[in-house]
Amino acid sequence: MKELNKSTILRLARYLRVLQKLKSLGFVKVFSNNLGDAIGVTPAVVRKDFSMISIPGNKRGGYNIDTLIAHLGAALGKDQVHEVIIVGCGRIGSALMEYREFAKEGIHVVAGFDSDPARVAASANVPIYDIREMPDFIRSRGITVGIVAVPDAAAAQVLSRMTEAGIQGVLNFAPVELKCSEGCLIHNVNLGLEIENLFYLLKLGDRQSPVHELT
Amino acid sequence: MKELNKSTILRLARYLRVLQKLKSLGFVKVFSNNLGDAIGVTPAVVRKDFSMISIPGNKRGGYNIDTLIAHLGAALGKDQVHEVIIVGCGRIGSALMEYREFAKEGIHVVAGFDSDPARVAASANVPIYDIREMPDFIRSRGITVGIVAVPDAAAAQVLSRMTEAGIQGVLNFAPVELKCSEGCLIHNVNLGLEIENLFYLLKLGDRQSPVHELT
Repeated sequence: MKELNKSTILRLARYLRVLQKLKSLGFVKVFSNNLGDAIGVTPAVVRKDFSMISIPGNKRGGYNIDTLIAHLGAALGKDQVHEVIIVGCGRIGSALMEYREFAKEGIHVVAGFDSDPARVAASANVPIYDIREMPDFIRSRGITVGIVAVPDAAAAQVLSRMTEAGIQGVLNFAPVELKCSEGCLIHNVNLGLEIENLFYLLKLGDRQSPVHELT
Repeated sequence: MKELNKSTILRLARYLRVLQKLKSLGFVKVFSNNLGDAIGVTPAVVRKDFSMISIPGNKRGGYNIDTLIAHLGAALGKDQVHEVIIVGCGRIGSALMEYREFAKEGIHVVAGFDSDPARVAASANVPIYDIREMPDFIRSRGITVGIVAVPDAAAAQVLSRMTEAGIQGVLNFAPVELKCSEGCLIHNVNLGLEIENLFYLLKLGDRQSPVHELT
């Protein structure tokens, strides 16, 4: 297998999503142009991406979906168990602890952590522990990915304690853009900013041309 | 004011965020290189963006933060009330209905909608109505932005009913990439995919070079 870059990896993940949906609809074969349409790239990009993970090109007859799923899954490490922790068990954090979609995708939320003793619940379905127990938990379980859902004032300190213990990838819901100098990956999901941006972009659309004709 | 493109608008929104944080820390002045560092662009980009919204360049003395906040807020329409609805009031949807960060940002969740009669609560703090009432509500209140937090099977139909009634911008949490042909803006936040992507990218890092030295 050749070296894959970040954007290729992310496209492979999106192909895999589409293929799993097609399979659940009973489809057996798919063409590169269908996959390209589904994720917004040309069929040539699809075929090039597949050649990167040693899936032979097949313009005429289409690809077998099961074969593609197996190849993509292997390339992406989909067979591995994906254990994550959630730090901060307020509204957003606790909603994510019970989020059924994670389980469907092979993502296993193994524990939550919170600084509020009232939220600690070690015998819950997904246990919530005191945040002071987090570093030992990360080390002993070899956890590499965590979700941050603490208030913004606590986020930077929580992040450094997580990365010190071994966390390498973070999905951050705290309303502050976290940065990490130690080479760990951080994806910031700022929900307030996402909503604001929609309003700003709609305003931009209003200035340039009507985006959408209202009835 | 000149025509702003999408990426400029999004940068202006990020500057505004940083400036509000600096103001809350008691800062009065800021330089273009500080702002550039904070959002990962060069000082020249910051100055060019500011010139687009008629903020004069000021290399030497720095910018006054209050003046910048006022200019950016006006350019972005920050003074307007941002009313949103949430469609689908399960775990994620109801967590978002009570999300305090929205109120801080001037985003007002005015109602939730659900197809499950057990979730309807018209007299709640943020009322939850039957989803059949949604189109009339959108039209009568002139709502333009909505959050979709329904299961994936329902998402496409819900989206089309929203856009028919006048919704132009959607933040989608349903685990399916929604597309809209009528020119409305959709931002998909697929939480399962976000987590998976972190694992995939960490795996990529492992193959290429150690991302992070574990203790």
